[in-house]
Amino acid sequence: MTTSAADILDRCDELARHSSLPDGRIERVYLSPEHAAVNALAAGWMTAAGLTTWQDAAGNQCGRLEGAAPDLPALLLGSHLDTVPAAGRYDGILGVLLAIAVAERLARSGRALPFAIEIAAFGDEEGTRFGTTLLGSRALAGTWQSEWWQLRDQNGVSLEAAYRSFGLDPACIEDAARPTADLIGYLEAHIEQGPVLHDRGIALGVVSSIAGARRFGIVIEGAAGHSGTPWALRRDALAGASEVILAIERIARDANLIGTVGHLALSPDAVNVIPGRVEFSLDLRGEFDSHRDRAWTLIEETAQLICTRRALTVTSVQTHAAPAAHSSAHLRAAVAAGIRVAGSVAGAGVDVAAPPSLFSMAGHDAMAIAELTDIGMLFVRCRDGVSHHPDESVTEADVALALDAFEAAVLVLADQYDAEELDVEFDARAAAK
Amino acid sequence: MTTSAADILDRCDELARHSSLPDGRIERVYLSPEHAAVNALAAGWMTAAGLTTWQDAAGNQCGRLEGAAPDLPALLLGSHLDTVPAAGRYDGILGVLLAIAVAERLARSGRALPFAIEIAAFGDEEGTRFGTTLLGSRALAGTWQSEWWQLRDQNGVSLEAAYRSFGLDPACIEDAARPTADLIGYLEAHIEQGPVLHDRGIALGVVSSIAGARRFGIVIEGAAGHSGTPWALRRDALAGASEVILAIERIARDANLIGTVGHLALSPDAVNVIPGRVEFSLDLRGEFDSHRDRAWTLIEETAQLICTRRALTVTSVQTHAAPAAHSSAHLRAAVAAGIRVAGSVAGAGVDVAAPPSLFSMAGHDAMAIAELTDIGMLFVRCRDGVSHHPDESVTEADVALALDAFEAAVLVLADQYDAEELDVEFDARAAAK
Repeated sequence: MTTSAADILDRCDELARHSSLPDGRIERVYLSPEHAAVNALAAGWMTAAGLTTWQDAAGNQCGRLEGAAPDLPALLLGSHLDTVPAAGRYDGILGVLLAIAVAERLARSGRALPFAIEIAAFGDEEGTRFGTTLLGSRALAGTWQSEWWQLRDQNGVSLEAAYRSFGLDPACIEDAARPTADLIGYLEAHIEQGPVLHDRGIALGVVSSIAGARRFGIVIEGAAGHSGTPWALRRDALAGASEVILAIERIARDANLIGTVGHLALSPDAVNVIPGRVEFSLDLRGEFDSHRDRAWTLIEETAQLICTRRALTVTSVQTHAAPAAHSSAHLRAAVAAGIRVAGSVAGAGVDVAAPPSLFSMAGHDAMAIAELTDIGMLFVRCRDGVSHHPDESVTEADVALALDAFEAAVLVLADQYDAEELDVEFDARAAAK
Repeated sequence: MTTSAADILDRCDELARHSSLPDGRIERVYLSPEHAAVNALAAGWMTAAGLTTWQDAAGNQCGRLEGAAPDLPALLLGSHLDTVPAAGRYDGILGVLLAIAVAERLARSGRALPFAIEIAAFGDEEGTRFGTTLLGSRALAGTWQSEWWQLRDQNGVSLEAAYRSFGLDPACIEDAARPTADLIGYLEAHIEQGPVLHDRGIALGVVSSIAGARRFGIVIEGAAGHSGTPWALRRDALAGASEVILAIERIARDANLIGTVGHLALSPDAVNVIPGRVEFSLDLRGEFDSHRDRAWTLIEETAQLICTRRALTVTSVQTHAAPAAHSSAHLRAAVAAGIRVAGSVAGAGVDVAAPPSLFSMAGHDAMAIAELTDIGMLFVRCRDGVSHHPDESVTEADVALALDAFEAAVLVLADQYDAEELDVEFDARAAAK
């Protein structure tokens, strides 16, 4: 028996037990003991699926199934095993487990594939521990930045020290980088983290592109003072920040973008003192980089106007920027074809005629891998579109459909490669005539 | 030589060195080692001034100068020695040091007063450590609440345990309570913590009444979720809180009240997660309790409307309530007369014709003592009205005027008491005829 959708959900539950939080809440961050534990579990499942396994120089858990001949370029399947704080149990994780189950089916089928299959279970996508996201997939993509070694977690531990504690050698980080020639492309399955599939009553969709995101740290400064200070003398940084937060909401909506202020801290932070300083984060994302950049300029100018009127100062720094990433046409077509195959077998829950093409507001490892090779993504419906929350939920039926569709997408690519090889052979024969 | 204004400022500097914060910043909380250190300094200065001294059952440092006969009821002079975090060096402290210097002048004058002079240097007014204010003065006023023993500081130390660590016996707290018959009234000198005197170019004012304050803890709950979640699905507690904070500002201004949101915390508090829960404090104060209560009702109703529209919930609990406290007419008159005496001597910086009558937006120990005896307060100009901030500042000239006025106010009361005694004697003689 190969791994079923029910088995995949059981594995999600088993991974969820590896958490640094008590009370059943889930948090699993890069280079933690929990990271090591889930890598070992994933390696075991990969081995059982018939793959050779290794942990790469960035702590990503990897596996490989050879194709028809040794050392062929690989189709990489992947997603991540790390989580946000108080997370759900499917974001990233479901994609890794679907990839392992697909590889297992291919291994058991005995079919000689025209490419190898590799799996990457990335150790960091969320950036929970060090504030910078996609560390695992960026290491594999060869876009590691040496200044990241000095990033520190909330306990002051540097990324470099965390590498050594995990048994990794920072000097070897380049070993994690894969040459483009090693890969023919990257496919990732992931929960949608949005409501479109849920609202339409459809299990699966194809990802057209992934939102580019820019993140900023914004500081508003006024003057701390006694809570009895009259209005004319108050320079209340929190009142100013509140107005800026509402302006961000308004401007982002108008520009068809999403803006989130997820972190905010006051100084002082006392019941009877006017807050003299507020720092907060802004995550601004959308389908078109140019819209996002214009909206940010408008937000900056509006914040200046608000703060000038309130006798406050405002400063901001960009802490992260990623351009929008677009799925390549042939991988998008393969994912759509895989969905059609799964839907024609299942007969329900899938729009076989027109698998929905979805834009992803959430970032994914595929964004980092897009700098290395072609990418394609399969989205799986999640209940109410909720994610980054313990209520994250998928159905067994949807996971079964996703497993069929993911496998079928790989086989569609295999057929294409086989056909191309015939073409090459035909061309060679024609040329020989 | 008696203690001069310059000496008083030197003593403020000396007290400022007793802080739990590094870098010259000042924080001194109830029942801390710094509290013990400043009590010892104050006791030394009281002894040098000719007073007998003791630390009461609540950790307040006290002193007494007998009147014309032993055991006469006392005029109590006082203020507090504790601070907010990152405080200035005059709030409360200046009042204690002025009281000691006034008592010293009276002791050296040799005048037989018709009442004793007592001084109370309260150990807690700000509530920095345990969140509940006026603990020192409430103990003296006999309004201690037994549930306070379970209050905890940010390290989880209960008030009861802190009492024992300080060498105090919680079972003896009633010993700190003074019977009304022991006192003829209470006078407190304090920096204004507002801009009125500064703006008018006047050194001293009389306090008419002290704002009643109500404090609330407000919790807004929505749903945490991925920062890419589309607008229609977002239940962003921080966006709701921002709107409520601006509504508080608008309603409080309209009602001629002051409203301060000084504490705010998000959960989760991560760059890429929508805040699912925001808790914040509201300190609402004004001259008339009825205005304040109506404004709170309006704030509650507005917050409900905002949160309903945003699919959020809002709940609130009152954490503190104090009615407005009014100075008694004869003590207000005595303070005004004292200001006139000081001004007629100094000839500058004082409005001798009409000493300004000020309403205090800030709370004071006098609010707690108002439940025990008559109160009166003298306000001293502070630069730009700034307080609860390291920039808190007073001038030596103003302190000199305050010292003269405070002494003169006590002597005005002494004259009144002497005259009343003559009246009683006259009545007695008339009755004997």
